[in-house]
Amino acid sequence: MDIEKIECIFNPQSVAVIGATDTFGKWGFDLIRAVVKNRGKRKIYPVNIREEEVCGIKSFHRVTDIPETVDFAVIVVPAPHVVSVMRDCAKKGVKAAIVITAGFAEMGEKGKELQKELVSVARDGGIRFIGPNTMGHFSTLSGFDTLTLLPVAFKRGEIGLISQSGNIGGYVLLRGLEEGVGFSKFIGTGNEADLTLEDYLEYLGQDDNTKVIALYIEGLRQGRRFFELAREISKKKPIVALKVGRTSAGMKAAQSHTSALSGADRIYDAMFKQCGVIRVDEVAELYDTAIALLRQPIMKGNRVGILTRGGGFGVLSSDACQARGLDVSTLSPRTIDGLNAILPPYWSHGNPVDTVAATGCTYEALRLMLDDENIDAIYYVAVIDKDPRLNIGRLIDIAPSKREQAERLVAEYNSRELESVDMMLSHMGEYQKPIVFCSSRPGRKPWDSELYHRFRDDGVMIYSAPEDGAKVLARLAEYGRYLRSCG
Amino acid sequence: MDIEKIECIFNPQSVAVIGATDTFGKWGFDLIRAVVKNRGKRKIYPVNIREEEVCGIKSFHRVTDIPETVDFAVIVVPAPHVVSVMRDCAKKGVKAAIVITAGFAEMGEKGKELQKELVSVARDGGIRFIGPNTMGHFSTLSGFDTLTLLPVAFKRGEIGLISQSGNIGGYVLLRGLEEGVGFSKFIGTGNEADLTLEDYLEYLGQDDNTKVIALYIEGLRQGRRFFELAREISKKKPIVALKVGRTSAGMKAAQSHTSALSGADRIYDAMFKQCGVIRVDEVAELYDTAIALLRQPIMKGNRVGILTRGGGFGVLSSDACQARGLDVSTLSPRTIDGLNAILPPYWSHGNPVDTVAATGCTYEALRLMLDDENIDAIYYVAVIDKDPRLNIGRLIDIAPSKREQAERLVAEYNSRELESVDMMLSHMGEYQKPIVFCSSRPGRKPWDSELYHRFRDDGVMIYSAPEDGAKVLARLAEYGRYLRSCG
Repeated sequence: MDIEKIECIFNPQSVAVIGATDTFGKWGFDLIRAVVKNRGKRKIYPVNIREEEVCGIKSFHRVTDIPETVDFAVIVVPAPHVVSVMRDCAKKGVKAAIVITAGFAEMGEKGKELQKELVSVARDGGIRFIGPNTMGHFSTLSGFDTLTLLPVAFKRGEIGLISQSGNIGGYVLLRGLEEGVGFSKFIGTGNEADLTLEDYLEYLGQDDNTKVIALYIEGLRQGRRFFELAREISKKKPIVALKVGRTSAGMKAAQSHTSALSGADRIYDAMFKQCGVIRVDEVAELYDTAIALLRQPIMKGNRVGILTRGGGFGVLSSDACQARGLDVSTLSPRTIDGLNAILPPYWSHGNPVDTVAATGCTYEALRLMLDDENIDAIYYVAVIDKDPRLNIGRLIDIAPSKREQAERLVAEYNSRELESVDMMLSHMGEYQKPIVFCSSRPGRKPWDSELYHRFRDDGVMIYSAPEDGAKVLARLAEYGRYLRSCG
Repeated sequence: MDIEKIECIFNPQSVAVIGATDTFGKWGFDLIRAVVKNRGKRKIYPVNIREEEVCGIKSFHRVTDIPETVDFAVIVVPAPHVVSVMRDCAKKGVKAAIVITAGFAEMGEKGKELQKELVSVARDGGIRFIGPNTMGHFSTLSGFDTLTLLPVAFKRGEIGLISQSGNIGGYVLLRGLEEGVGFSKFIGTGNEADLTLEDYLEYLGQDDNTKVIALYIEGLRQGRRFFELAREISKKKPIVALKVGRTSAGMKAAQSHTSALSGADRIYDAMFKQCGVIRVDEVAELYDTAIALLRQPIMKGNRVGILTRGGGFGVLSSDACQARGLDVSTLSPRTIDGLNAILPPYWSHGNPVDTVAATGCTYEALRLMLDDENIDAIYYVAVIDKDPRLNIGRLIDIAPSKREQAERLVAEYNSRELESVDMMLSHMGEYQKPIVFCSSRPGRKPWDSELYHRFRDDGVMIYSAPEDGAKVLARLAEYGRYLRSCG
């Protein structure tokens, strides 16, 4: 692999943005602004055949007019001009580039010819490039960003995302943005005319800032290489993949989208299993699973203990866990005795442990369950079933004079809960058993509360439906099994 | 069925709340407030053995002390006192009741005995009752509400929800609350010692204010009656059910929760199919599907046309639709011609119709697809891919002087989009073909925008993941098939 050139893709010292413009509504308008926003010491050169200045910066008519060295070119001119621009870049000694422009292999025979020519010009000039037909890429560490999705920077984190679709990549990134989850690097691979998904995978495999790799795959161009790479990488860091084209309709759509040939789905399935890639079924799962794999300990077996504050959630979670191959295991007699001592007499006396809305003892129940040798992970469902703000509302409903009392109760409740979050997370590390959390409230509003922030700051998700957390637990078990099978 | 008594459950003229209290933290505190909040002309009598006044209202020591007629009793005293309270109610001539208190059949042999006694006292007194061990119930039409989940009233609507779990019911109700979706009636069935799920189903079946019935089922006590009722009702209004206990772990948990015997899952599955009950797999689906069944036209076949502004979403949706038995059909030549005339040359030329981020023509494309005799429903994915607020942000980024121009652009964009929503919804009615919408953004934040409010006010959901909408479409197709099979 051309490590130096791929390094340059994520952290160039000098960048030409070819097609930069001040005309609102054009991609080149957003792009120059994306590149400029975190520039730091990076040198930025707008290039526009007609302009003298773009975005308040001196602009050049051609990349060859730039008097200084140019490491990297961002190309966003119309398709018919891309090849000649690439030729200029070669003359200029540019090391690497990204071609945002569409209208190549995804457009039939003529486009394929044009793409071939583009590759040949770049290869002759020693330029490696991303695209064409891509939404962009970024590194949060270096602050280099060609993704025009939003006028804000993405948060730094340890998930590396490689996506063969800009909008699916964007979907995952936006969920992270909304929930405060960071990424190390993102690459929208586009048509992969030169650099392919396998190149990025190899790079992220050896990138110390990336601890989990998430992939959206329509079709692999170098299946054998992918397999060899993934087999090595997945021993050190988890790889989670959403591979589409499961059905004939999906395959057809993928071909028309990025000219990717999906291949028989069951071959992919077997291949992923053999090289330890965790395959997920839905786009939300790609995100949910990547975060869990990042933060949670390796799961040592298949046995889940479910802790719930409500019976219905316990039933739903039991079904969801077992349906995904997890074992809702039998508690040891010692755990039962321990729980008898702290829970009200009407608790469920088994797994799921239903505290029947009893509060104040759930943390202690969780600790007892973590200590059970029959349990490899905890699923804590219906966490935070009380919103203290509502309690205040109810209390001052009697008499405004009770506001003070209400606020004190809420503060006490909050600090007790926050303390228990800290203890739960520290026990998760101590016992090296995953704890997956699910809220009893739908939607993502809970992220507004202090309690949820505490979880989030530690990189732990609260799933919002009982089935979602069960899916994630099954993936954690799968990855643990794979690692054990490697010996 | 005892229609008069069940009527009384949802709209009593006079209510005794037995166990009402001003002690914060007790259920009776929240309960009296829930009952009082929309009282209108309804007479409310707190009953508490020790108090003279509760919640600012004159209180009675026993229900028999109340000088006026009492239609309905809300019972929230500790379990050991429930039977004697029920005896008092019988003496007083109360017609119907709800027993919130837990500690009956779900608690083993002693609890079962107590429950038997309770039923026998109620039967002797001619009282029908909900529970015991229930979260409560409500009717938004009458404003009668014993559900203490939140100190606000739920919105009026046409979905009737019957749940064998309070927290699962609460989950669905809270999602509705968050997204502005209303309900007609809710019943947390509890232990179903007297009135059962089948009674409520029969009642909602003939209730004109309920257009769709949603069920959370752990186990049926009167399977044969359920079957007969559902077979008749589902011809007139859709019934959607989440039935848990699919796995042995789920069955065991259900038994410990509400002492329900789940029975073999495949028997339930076959039974639901025969009587036209739409069975869903996840709690989020119960909500999503109920809303779609409420508002969308009956689907006349299996063939879906997918319209997308991004290729990845098109691929994911194609997979998700076909995997659930839908047919991503071939467009008619006339539709292809029509789309060629309005879309940029690089469109996908097939189904899914990928407009490749071209804007301004998606509404017209949708109309052409609706008109295609090969299409029974439209799945419109990645609706509203532009957030005008971001565009303003970008534009004023060049020069603050352009703010005015930016605001005009946004206003134009907004009014064009709003117009197209109106047209899409009116065409949905005209062609009588469902249109299911999915956002390109994760989470539920889009509900804040004017555009989403317009959809929502018309009762139409925007799903936030491509797989979610596909699941719903498959249910719409299933219900259509069932109705056709009935002739």
